[in-house]
Amino acid sequence: MTIHETARIEAYAAQEPGASLAPFDYEPDALGPNDVDIQITHCGICHSDLHLIDNDWQTSTYPLIPGHEIVGTVAQKGALVSHLEIGARVGVGWQCGSCFSCEWCDRGDENLCAQTVATCVGRPGGFADRIRVDGRFAFEVPEDLASEVAAPLFCGGITVYSPLSQHARPQSRVGVIGIGGLGHLAIRLAKAMGCEVTAFSSTAAKEEEARAQGAHHFVSSTDDRALKGQSESQDLIISTVNTPMDWRRYVNALRPDGVLSFVGALSEPLTIPTGLLLARRRSLSGSPIGGRVAMRQMLDFAARHGIGAEVEVLPMSAVNQALDRLRRNDVRYRFVLARG
Amino acid sequence: MTIHETARIEAYAAQEPGASLAPFDYEPDALGPNDVDIQITHCGICHSDLHLIDNDWQTSTYPLIPGHEIVGTVAQKGALVSHLEIGARVGVGWQCGSCFSCEWCDRGDENLCAQTVATCVGRPGGFADRIRVDGRFAFEVPEDLASEVAAPLFCGGITVYSPLSQHARPQSRVGVIGIGGLGHLAIRLAKAMGCEVTAFSSTAAKEEEARAQGAHHFVSSTDDRALKGQSESQDLIISTVNTPMDWRRYVNALRPDGVLSFVGALSEPLTIPTGLLLARRRSLSGSPIGGRVAMRQMLDFAARHGIGAEVEVLPMSAVNQALDRLRRNDVRYRFVLARG
Repeated sequence: MTIHETARIEAYAAQEPGASLAPFDYEPDALGPNDVDIQITHCGICHSDLHLIDNDWQTSTYPLIPGHEIVGTVAQKGALVSHLEIGARVGVGWQCGSCFSCEWCDRGDENLCAQTVATCVGRPGGFADRIRVDGRFAFEVPEDLASEVAAPLFCGGITVYSPLSQHARPQSRVGVIGIGGLGHLAIRLAKAMGCEVTAFSSTAAKEEEARAQGAHHFVSSTDDRALKGQSESQDLIISTVNTPMDWRRYVNALRPDGVLSFVGALSEPLTIPTGLLLARRRSLSGSPIGGRVAMRQMLDFAARHGIGAEVEVLPMSAVNQALDRLRRNDVRYRFVLARG
Repeated sequence: MTIHETARIEAYAAQEPGASLAPFDYEPDALGPNDVDIQITHCGICHSDLHLIDNDWQTSTYPLIPGHEIVGTVAQKGALVSHLEIGARVGVGWQCGSCFSCEWCDRGDENLCAQTVATCVGRPGGFADRIRVDGRFAFEVPEDLASEVAAPLFCGGITVYSPLSQHARPQSRVGVIGIGGLGHLAIRLAKAMGCEVTAFSSTAAKEEEARAQGAHHFVSSTDDRALKGQSESQDLIISTVNTPMDWRRYVNALRPDGVLSFVGALSEPLTIPTGLLLARRRSLSGSPIGGRVAMRQMLDFAARHGIGAEVEVLPMSAVNQALDRLRRNDVRYRFVLARG
């Protein structure tokens, strides 16, 4: 299949904050020497897409084309792209650009680059038939991973893989707060790393599912007595939620040298007595997606252990139905839009 | 000189919260097989001693004998003490006991042991002619360090050495908040480690002194514009203060992967937007004193670089004068009490 450089891209866009998506086509910028055109087959839906549609972060521009858990095949490439062949199956996540010249880029932590470019912030995303992006942020999907379960790895997967990769060892006890799109991947990855995994969720009904994902323990996050009982039990706790919680309980659930890592910003500032940090040399940290080295490691690791997301696949034409259900948290655990 | 096991110890004690110290003598517990008797020559005064005298932490028992920056010579030792000879010059800091059987003790992080014993909490401290303590927490003072400048290393020194040892590399840019007993040692140690050092202080008059200690830069912590200008400038910031500050400014002053480490508990809980942590994968941490491995490393390192505390030496009989002046922060930078 040949895509002409001038072909318009068929997408779904919100025309204003909070709007439903409607078909929208646009002409991409000229293919740069490092760019690839990806013929999209699948795109996951992340909660961030809702925030972008709603302009919750005051960074959105309209028409807004969401979508940053993209899988497809390389249809065209710029003159400098040597690592990908036409037809290669690749994925693109939240980040699609960086300066490639700062110390963070040089050491493979492009996610820390101050010039980071987000795939669907100020530029068109993956709810479309095609996307033109910097090929250095397109990663080959390992053969063993089906496209629909691989797509969510490119944002949800790397987001929880990064703090695991930084802080967890196979001997670690790892807690995961929130068993949704990110949390279920965190459980699967931590289990595969050899860790002892505890799921924290406000939804009692998720206990069985969390255990099926690989959690060894389940703790109700609304049961204060149970939370208290977790004192000094975890080496790493990854929080995938953004709602107010009694964070002192979770800091207190850290063992010495333990880390509480936030992979999403809380809606309210965090208030913590520093004595809780001092007592056992605990840390609070934040982890934003992951760099290109981590992305490749994560894909290798996921393929080796047969880890993809638990997905519900809908045709891309049903994007509004999927978004509506996601707003109600009616998804187990990730929607992936597929093109016909 | 021979000390009989039954000789009473001559000390200075507060009889009730906030009281001046008065001479007080007591009979020590029997010499245990791991114990040493130390004939005290010097004892530093730490802010914690004031907190203990005042029972600020509700852990004090009276009569209270403060003092946990102790240097002296081994006068007697139990049957199992093989690492110290009679007459050895040793020091004891905040910690004088741990369980020696948990994983933290096993790996040399006794400061993280849940059974930690503090030198002058619930037991008599070093404002005295002698102390009987577990010899495993008595460390030989390197020959090159004079006793009076070494004494403060056993609490103030190890407290700031630990986060430096954990988080700083020679290439690091290290900020130190508060240029007092702990802060001036942090500057000296960080400078000797090869780091680029920035002193943050509310006292403009301390600029010259901070630079003399080794700081490359000085920033007024009351100049909000100057603080803002420090955005993404530091890899590690060690806070030695306990007063409310605009902590968002300091978190924002961290470079990617930077750590803000509190070595003393703040008087009020810390409130931080988690987005500031996420943005650059920053961390907040607390560091309590240091284990026995770190203590030995710190002493070696300090001796190699000729680093002791800047002290004002007073006779131990002037302890109340020293405490009064310390309450007014009238000290550059550490009082050390000397015996006869």
